[in-house]
Amino acid sequence: MNKKEKDLIFGIHPIIEAIRAGKTIDKVFIQKGLHNDLFSELWELVRRQRINYKHVPLEKLNRITKKNHQGVLAFISPIHFHNIENILPAIYEEGKTPLILILDRITDVRNFGAITRTAECAGVNAILIPEKNSAAINSDAIKTSSGALHNIAICRTWNLNLSIEFLKNSGVKIISCTEKASNNIYELDCNRPTAIVMGSEENGISNEILELSDQKVKIPMKGKIKSLNVSVATGVILYEIIRQQINEVV
Amino acid sequence: MNKKEKDLIFGIHPIIEAIRAGKTIDKVFIQKGLHNDLFSELWELVRRQRINYKHVPLEKLNRITKKNHQGVLAFISPIHFHNIENILPAIYEEGKTPLILILDRITDVRNFGAITRTAECAGVNAILIPEKNSAAINSDAIKTSSGALHNIAICRTWNLNLSIEFLKNSGVKIISCTEKASNNIYELDCNRPTAIVMGSEENGISNEILELSDQKVKIPMKGKIKSLNVSVATGVILYEIIRQQINEVV
Repeated sequence: MNKKEKDLIFGIHPIIEAIRAGKTIDKVFIQKGLHNDLFSELWELVRRQRINYKHVPLEKLNRITKKNHQGVLAFISPIHFHNIENILPAIYEEGKTPLILILDRITDVRNFGAITRTAECAGVNAILIPEKNSAAINSDAIKTSSGALHNIAICRTWNLNLSIEFLKNSGVKIISCTEKASNNIYELDCNRPTAIVMGSEENGISNEILELSDQKVKIPMKGKIKSLNVSVATGVILYEIIRQQINEVV
Repeated sequence: MNKKEKDLIFGIHPIIEAIRAGKTIDKVFIQKGLHNDLFSELWELVRRQRINYKHVPLEKLNRITKKNHQGVLAFISPIHFHNIENILPAIYEEGKTPLILILDRITDVRNFGAITRTAECAGVNAILIPEKNSAAINSDAIKTSSGALHNIAICRTWNLNLSIEFLKNSGVKIISCTEKASNNIYELDCNRPTAIVMGSEENGISNEILELSDQKVKIPMKGKIKSLNVSVATGVILYEIIRQQINEVV
């Protein structure tokens, strides 16, 4: 069994059993127009448990597996997901100052894994990602993260903007790392509950999130290349926060 | 022609012509025990121009290409290499404070490319690498570097320790980034000519180079994973230097 197969189950009954057994489903692919009694049972479970799903053409399912998938495929997540609404109070209760990392549309699995590793090393308490437009969390992601994905709370949300508003209302300062900022990261002030937003190299951070942000900062660029790799950029800004926290203690 | 083939030439005459045409040869593989009149001409060129070479068994050459290689293969470098002995005075003459990055045994092509991109963004003047035990500089490296390999001077040396001694004698402070340090990177003092040494994730920095270093610093680790990816670590330390330089100007 290769690693791809380990992340994948297919057929209606196996998927129903996996959900009932409490496995975390990353995403279900459902053949467009699928409709029968057996499927209805799965469909009800998917809707009730708010499992991430997508309708796809039959050809797409056939490309993923040649086996008898009965019109449904499920990607099993190797990790358990959390809700930011539960995690944030828990961080406060432990007496910690929350440091949250928010990833807006980072879809590259290797970048996501590398960012998770960096976040774990930098003492980030939780990573918040949207259900859609995020990297698949599979065995490749686990490997690139050096196992960090097992040590850090990954929170998924169906609406990233709403979750950011929840954070703001809970006393967390939202800081977006964007080339569109006029201040450098060294002008940050983050000795309080903080969430750092990173966007993908292609799309950056959405305008809605930029508007929700309390502060925008940029990493100074001294060469001809106009941006760092996003996992390097995440390391640079997180370690600037660590520096400020160390200085504060001294 | 795929990218691998673009980086590779084989046969005695084509390699002689490439060298005479001034192409930069990354490395020549020579079949063990090869000896004939035609080869003697190539051999003299390789020795005279101090081209990096390695004797390898016939089977290895056959695995790389099925074509008629006549016992010799050459990897063409897409970039031109510099000597640190020429580059350092040029940096001083331009009125700049040198910031050099030294890579000790970083052999992973993707890491090397990512580090080069980060170094270019951070305004590093030159990267110093050893001829042996370095990543191949090929089209993959160029791509991972986002083209930065074309914008930054890459200096190769046949003896890294000697080149580091040259830097020290030229007024450059050698700072090694290593887990074995007791001081954090935030205790750096680098408002003077500086060379930062980074080692591979597997081997770290050699003991000889650690002994040659003027200062050893570490990046604080706050999680369970014991180290950052080396390209992220390079970003974190280089941007700490930028922060100090910006503060100095203010």
